[in-house]
Amino acid sequence: MMAFKTDIEIAREAKKLPIQEIGAKLGIGPEDLVPYGHDKAKVSADFIARQAGNKNGKLILVTAINPTPAGEGKTTTTVGLGDGLNAIGKKAAVCIREASLGPCFGMKGGAAGGGYAQVVPMEEMNLHFTGDFHAITSAHNLLSALIDNHIYWGNSLDIDIRRVVWKRVMDMNDRALRDIVTSLGGVANGFPRQAGFDITVASEVMAILCLSNDLEDLQERLGRIIVAYTRDRKPVTCKELKADGAMTVLLKDAMQPNLVQTLENNPAFVHGGPFANIAHGCNSVVATKTALKLNDYVVTEAGFGADLGAEKFMNIKCRKAGLAPAAIVIVATIRAMKMNGGVKKQDLGAENVAAVKDGCANLGRHIENIKGFGVPAVVAINHFAGDTEAEIKACKDYVASQGSEAILCKHWAEGSKGIQELATRVAQIADSGVAQFQMLYPDDMSLMKKIETIAKRIYRADERLADKKIRDQLAQWEEQGFRDLPICMAKTQYSFSTDANLRGAPTGHSVPIREVRLSAGAGFVVVVCGEIMTMPGLPRVPSSESIMLNDEGLIEGLF
Amino acid sequence: MMAFKTDIEIAREAKKLPIQEIGAKLGIGPEDLVPYGHDKAKVSADFIARQAGNKNGKLILVTAINPTPAGEGKTTTTVGLGDGLNAIGKKAAVCIREASLGPCFGMKGGAAGGGYAQVVPMEEMNLHFTGDFHAITSAHNLLSALIDNHIYWGNSLDIDIRRVVWKRVMDMNDRALRDIVTSLGGVANGFPRQAGFDITVASEVMAILCLSNDLEDLQERLGRIIVAYTRDRKPVTCKELKADGAMTVLLKDAMQPNLVQTLENNPAFVHGGPFANIAHGCNSVVATKTALKLNDYVVTEAGFGADLGAEKFMNIKCRKAGLAPAAIVIVATIRAMKMNGGVKKQDLGAENVAAVKDGCANLGRHIENIKGFGVPAVVAINHFAGDTEAEIKACKDYVASQGSEAILCKHWAEGSKGIQELATRVAQIADSGVAQFQMLYPDDMSLMKKIETIAKRIYRADERLADKKIRDQLAQWEEQGFRDLPICMAKTQYSFSTDANLRGAPTGHSVPIREVRLSAGAGFVVVVCGEIMTMPGLPRVPSSESIMLNDEGLIEGLF
Repeated sequence: MMAFKTDIEIAREAKKLPIQEIGAKLGIGPEDLVPYGHDKAKVSADFIARQAGNKNGKLILVTAINPTPAGEGKTTTTVGLGDGLNAIGKKAAVCIREASLGPCFGMKGGAAGGGYAQVVPMEEMNLHFTGDFHAITSAHNLLSALIDNHIYWGNSLDIDIRRVVWKRVMDMNDRALRDIVTSLGGVANGFPRQAGFDITVASEVMAILCLSNDLEDLQERLGRIIVAYTRDRKPVTCKELKADGAMTVLLKDAMQPNLVQTLENNPAFVHGGPFANIAHGCNSVVATKTALKLNDYVVTEAGFGADLGAEKFMNIKCRKAGLAPAAIVIVATIRAMKMNGGVKKQDLGAENVAAVKDGCANLGRHIENIKGFGVPAVVAINHFAGDTEAEIKACKDYVASQGSEAILCKHWAEGSKGIQELATRVAQIADSGVAQFQMLYPDDMSLMKKIETIAKRIYRADERLADKKIRDQLAQWEEQGFRDLPICMAKTQYSFSTDANLRGAPTGHSVPIREVRLSAGAGFVVVVCGEIMTMPGLPRVPSSESIMLNDEGLIEGLF
Repeated sequence: MMAFKTDIEIAREAKKLPIQEIGAKLGIGPEDLVPYGHDKAKVSADFIARQAGNKNGKLILVTAINPTPAGEGKTTTTVGLGDGLNAIGKKAAVCIREASLGPCFGMKGGAAGGGYAQVVPMEEMNLHFTGDFHAITSAHNLLSALIDNHIYWGNSLDIDIRRVVWKRVMDMNDRALRDIVTSLGGVANGFPRQAGFDITVASEVMAILCLSNDLEDLQERLGRIIVAYTRDRKPVTCKELKADGAMTVLLKDAMQPNLVQTLENNPAFVHGGPFANIAHGCNSVVATKTALKLNDYVVTEAGFGADLGAEKFMNIKCRKAGLAPAAIVIVATIRAMKMNGGVKKQDLGAENVAAVKDGCANLGRHIENIKGFGVPAVVAINHFAGDTEAEIKACKDYVASQGSEAILCKHWAEGSKGIQELATRVAQIADSGVAQFQMLYPDDMSLMKKIETIAKRIYRADERLADKKIRDQLAQWEEQGFRDLPICMAKTQYSFSTDANLRGAPTGHSVPIREVRLSAGAGFVVVVCGEIMTMPGLPRVPSSESIMLNDEGLIEGLF
């Protein structure tokens, strides 16, 4: 049997082109590419502005079933499909999210894709990359410092120090910073108060950067951030602290999308990385729109499974940015179907057609949900070496019985030539214009009704549990002018329900709302169902212990 | 009268060359320049390693009298002298420090130089630049997180949580973070303890990066950092936490020196920015050594006045890196002489030859001190428009009476053509080989004796006040093997004494030592005399309030 190469081994063997050559494929001249090393660049804001008149390409969303420990390969399929489209002669690019640096020192960092469907340079993308997250950290913490500084110098805005809702952020897994008391040590250090840090990807600044159309839009959104409340609960905004201008300056470069390449030297935009629970979990609007102006097809992905990621992609990102997907790919694996069918991870090696059939219910629910958005869905079966013919047939038959189709894809092992059937079919669908995209709810529906709509139509829950305090809070925000905002659900990604252990396609469950948060700058109301961790911790043996440079100067232990 | 242009106006009119052309002047090919945009680059570690066999150029240090509110223009003169040397046909580069981002949002950010002697791009150098400080922040805070994580998971190293000496850092002026309690909120968040943040430039990681010869040296030094003590006061190091490898990975790119250019398109290395009080206040050893391998003359500067900056440059940086200056320039201004002579800032406009003469005592002391290092000193009088002939003559005569010479320099207004006399003279001195560099004290002198030597020979203090606790601490470190370390004095930069208001050339004062700190990784003992602030605060009206992008996309309010 052939020895498999690891993702990092494959990535290091990549024959990368100078980034200027990737830019040239898209018609971006060297003067409009801001290089970061020889294999990464930002696309200049000036260039982007000049493309406004271009026709848009077709947008293809890659989503997935609920994630299982078996792994689905959503990013791998996104990258593979991009390469596949290029291989069949289409002009296509992929748009994915940036990775967060901090978590790499806890668990191993991740490739962008896998096998022969990856985006490179892998090391840089897991470390500082082009500095976007550092810029977001700086902008966020400048606002934090200005809040305490305002209080220190007289607090003319009358901020209630018990009601400061803007925390600080760091791109690090540091549980000690979750809950802290600041400004100890006497008069010169300010007024002591309880505070805390989130990880940078959880920052509202991240969500804002990813939803903004340009720097002007960015500054307006930053200005709308609610940082605190007065004693009589009047919101205090970033703009009142006059922080929006300086934050925009700090984010000026970070707003420009990053261009890198796949292993097959096709363009990949890697930009933005908001949490997929308390935020919308998609790459930036600027990157997606830029890619659409420069390509005939753009393949992008959304976080987690389709119940969270695709729903937010459509109800938040597409709504805000005026985008509409022309086709949607749902990634599934035979192994994940088996886990949904009740098989334990250690038993995944054995053929189990019955379990595949049982587990397909989860996939079927997602197909049905996606169709509800008016967009055709194709299932991509991301092939694993142990999948049997009978298992694959069982899955394909099930999908056919749902009025859709499933296509076996071998991009992980073969690169673009393993995914040309999917690429061809997706291009056909996108070109056919059959998609009639519609969002799940209108802007002017009440906030509670929007939550109910998602819970009922996507999660298939029987009841939504929200106590009076939460309903009152939603009502208050509606009075304050936030009724038109979409909902950003934060619940477990492992189930349609709020119970992570409930696989398959559960019904009859309830959705208890624990908390609601207003992201006035990003422009959504976060509905928290269950525990959501916004500052991770490090494990007993963090991966940092084995990360180092080897004798050749290569990074060991990061992957 | 001609209307003067501001530094930023001049900087924006600069005819910058592509950074590859600047690299080419030094023989650095495009493949060895890691670009960050079109006007900034890092010089690859590979290229640097290949230059090991080159002959070294001559090192010229620019230092100054004690700073006054009148401004001296040390960086301006450093940059001007570099341009001046190039203008007279010499191959020369300048080496200066990077700016810290955080403070720019409190007070206005600074140019690197001024007038027609500046390094560009100015905006980027005051903001994220090439991300070095962000990398230092990440590496520092990874170690911080690993300390609390170690304690959380069982504390097998037996760290005394009251004796954790490694704080966290942020590149922001945020007084609320000076003194905090972390790990509140229950079992899952760790063990509550008192902690705090410094600003990033105060991080020992910054000092280490600036003193390391290469990545291997960097990792060894990082490993030696003392992060905490056990209950029985045994030091716990970074290496014991296995953090040194991952920190080195995070700093891999940051270790490569940054190349930019002066307004006259001459090469400028801008790399590293350690505090000049609790650290040694010089640009990186890697940058200086690289510049020396590629140029006949390298002009660099040290922080604050010569009593702090030049002393540390020679006793710490030169000692550690095996460097020796061939000539030293002491920058003075007529205005600063007058302030040293007792004139108030508002009266500086009026001619006052007597005050110049009185104030020259400060300059004279610095000349004498510099000569004590065996290196010839030339005084650069950085010309201001209001200086009178009589005042300039008084200063020149005084310097001549001290056996040195003062040269009037008009680089601020005229660029290189205003400083050719100084450039010519400095090159002559450097070429003459007359310098016989010697450090102030040998490695094997006791720590207390080293402190006394600096206080006596540089500050001209009569007594050193150190209570028993401090003497015991120094003795303990000597027993632990740290006797050979040099001393890093942290005192006010405004006076030879520890009293900021004592201008001129005071004698008979005493130097009270408040605290000593061991920077085992950087390799020096910090001796704190007086209050040293390692986390600044923001003013009542921070400059962030007026920083914004204007309609042309240019940054307003940063300068």
